[in-house]
Amino acid sequence: MQFLDIREADFQAKFDAIVERGEESGREVEEVVLGIISDVRKRGDEALIEYTRRFDRLECDAAGLEITEAEFAKAFAQVDEKDLAALKLAVERVARYHEKQKQQTWLSTEEADIMLGQKVTPLAKVGIYVPGGKACYPSSVIMNAVPAKVAGVGEIIMVVPTPGGETNAHVLVAAKLSGVDRVFRIGGAQAVAALAYGTATVPRVDKITGPGNIYVATAKKLVFGQVGIDMIAGPSEILVINDGSGNPTHIAADLLSQAEHDELASSVLITTDRSFGEKVAAEVERQLKELSREAIARKSWESFGVIIVAGNLEEAIAFSNRIAPEHLELAVDNPFEIMPLITNAGAIFMGHYTPEASGDYLAGPNHTLPTGGTARFFSPLSVDDFVKKSSLIYFTKGGLQRVGKDIVRIATLEGLEAHGKSVSFRLDS
Amino acid sequence: MQFLDIREADFQAKFDAIVERGEESGREVEEVVLGIISDVRKRGDEALIEYTRRFDRLECDAAGLEITEAEFAKAFAQVDEKDLAALKLAVERVARYHEKQKQQTWLSTEEADIMLGQKVTPLAKVGIYVPGGKACYPSSVIMNAVPAKVAGVGEIIMVVPTPGGETNAHVLVAAKLSGVDRVFRIGGAQAVAALAYGTATVPRVDKITGPGNIYVATAKKLVFGQVGIDMIAGPSEILVINDGSGNPTHIAADLLSQAEHDELASSVLITTDRSFGEKVAAEVERQLKELSREAIARKSWESFGVIIVAGNLEEAIAFSNRIAPEHLELAVDNPFEIMPLITNAGAIFMGHYTPEASGDYLAGPNHTLPTGGTARFFSPLSVDDFVKKSSLIYFTKGGLQRVGKDIVRIATLEGLEAHGKSVSFRLDS
Repeated sequence: MQFLDIREADFQAKFDAIVERGEESGREVEEVVLGIISDVRKRGDEALIEYTRRFDRLECDAAGLEITEAEFAKAFAQVDEKDLAALKLAVERVARYHEKQKQQTWLSTEEADIMLGQKVTPLAKVGIYVPGGKACYPSSVIMNAVPAKVAGVGEIIMVVPTPGGETNAHVLVAAKLSGVDRVFRIGGAQAVAALAYGTATVPRVDKITGPGNIYVATAKKLVFGQVGIDMIAGPSEILVINDGSGNPTHIAADLLSQAEHDELASSVLITTDRSFGEKVAAEVERQLKELSREAIARKSWESFGVIIVAGNLEEAIAFSNRIAPEHLELAVDNPFEIMPLITNAGAIFMGHYTPEASGDYLAGPNHTLPTGGTARFFSPLSVDDFVKKSSLIYFTKGGLQRVGKDIVRIATLEGLEAHGKSVSFRLDS
Repeated sequence: MQFLDIREADFQAKFDAIVERGEESGREVEEVVLGIISDVRKRGDEALIEYTRRFDRLECDAAGLEITEAEFAKAFAQVDEKDLAALKLAVERVARYHEKQKQQTWLSTEEADIMLGQKVTPLAKVGIYVPGGKACYPSSVIMNAVPAKVAGVGEIIMVVPTPGGETNAHVLVAAKLSGVDRVFRIGGAQAVAALAYGTATVPRVDKITGPGNIYVATAKKLVFGQVGIDMIAGPSEILVINDGSGNPTHIAADLLSQAEHDELASSVLITTDRSFGEKVAAEVERQLKELSREAIARKSWESFGVIIVAGNLEEAIAFSNRIAPEHLELAVDNPFEIMPLITNAGAIFMGHYTPEASGDYLAGPNHTLPTGGTARFFSPLSVDDFVKKSSLIYFTKGGLQRVGKDIVRIATLEGLEAHGKSVSFRLDS
């Protein structure tokens, strides 16, 4: 962990190492993934079955790739009743929040002779990638499937690798609760390729969302254009802005909730109160020892943990806007007062009783957020990711007469004669 | 041109060649572009000046890269008054349409103890790429800059190559009218790199939009993630659905307005009336001979022009939805009756007096549309491309008490102990 003062001469240089962490997919990964994609396009199910055998140590035929209703029933039987209630609450709250993001088809009638509008149409089919193995996250299923469902997507196809054939009951239950239509036990670049191009068994989708390892991320990048994708996620981060108010124990726990995710995660506190910062540093050390995931959290905190002392809140806010953090906590007494000044952040957690973890699971907003400074231009995953729009244009003859000569003028100065004629022929006849 | 019947056995096979046209950026182009990007990152303005000398035959120093107010004044003096009026009308109408796309920051108060919302923030800086040389399109400036301006973008930076030092007056005038803040006379992959990473002279932006050649498109793809980009545009296409009503002369002109764009453009008519199709075919031949861009239009029409006879409108609509055309004309008597059935299209032009050209210039909707079937998942360029969103989450202590135990449950089943502790510490104290 670094303890820095924002006014030190070399502050920025010291902080840059944090910003520039994260793995780049090299050319070798790209070559491997390109090979897998072209193989799945060529040989379809046969290739899928082979890769699943090789990478997931799972032997099955094409029909066996799909998870059956009996398996779902078994999963429901395995899940504790209180866990089921918690997952249901999450689905319900996430759905309620995302309902508010829905946009309507509209048509303007302010000009009677030229009607203009925008048609909103749900995607027909989407694919959701869910990581398998160690990192099993039902919340990831909920956060991807529920917005798609709310958007009105026709069919939601989920893929999840099941290494050694092991399925995760919570993940399957979350899929059912969220409205997933079909689940295939495939993963990696081969699953992305199957969703992008379709095989005899796996339907071709219009968009693929969801997190994955470097092979999955590279495959998504490579099929982009053939299908839509959500943003490419990098390692996760939290930034806490503090004015000296609140409880250092709470803030330390929040920093660690980020650090425990993965060794490349970054947890940063910027406070106007040096002694608050020192207390948090001590608390982190104390709490670290009690964590089951101590090794990961400690590695992350040592490498990419930072406590920064700022001269005032304005400095802290300006710093945060420059960083564009994925998760931003405003751990201050009057969070609503400074919220309007935040220009770059994936999600803004306000006040002393809104830990980042609340947003990870069931507050309602999506937990798929732009990382690595991309909150400058990316937004949280939303219902908007699961619809597309079509412009609507309707001219009466009178409408075309009213503006037609100006259309012809611009067409002419652009040297596009046929464009002009398509208007003038209509005005002449 | 092919004249097909949708019910022929080999219809799909014959049509596939149309769908699969378009150039893929090969590895060689990618290597060249990667080299340029890394050079501009390393040497900044120096590299920009060198590439501009080499590719645009233009000699200037760093300060000379920016277009001056004197040059803008000269451009305004050169533009015909009626052309200026037409461009102003286009800016005004495009702005009015895009105003309707603006989304508001919202905050839900239906739960007093948990407030949730979504903050909408304009991007700070965007870069707009405008092709120079032969293809000079002031409409392209308007369609990219106006939505950015309406969105409230802080600074709009335009780049436009000026081969041999030649600037285009209409393009500069359109930039001023649309609210562009600064214009640099640079182009190609080097311009994209400068906008993505910034140089001493060219500011780093948050997103780059606008059309360009294969080097520009490849550069945009490669800097994606460092900055946002709009969709990658492929060759343009029009599909006309016809029920036998309307005027074959008009439809022929519409097909040619697409064909004259570029040799890879595709123009398709699907009609329920074979004789209407035959008349359009004859009209296209007649009009082709009179076009200044006959050679391009003829090449496009011969290679990628198709007239299809369908058994009924339902068949035509299903075909169109499968193709997901960039421009779709509903040249039928009751366009509003079938519009709801259209699920995939960039823009829908309705009725007999709405030629595609109307939407290219000044109807109001954006002319930057998803091509090559990507209307399955992409939308027209919009105000939404120039803002980003942040989730807002605020819990009172009571709110956290109400749902806290469910957060802890899910954190526990995901094995993320620190997540749970960040909640339980707050509930205990």
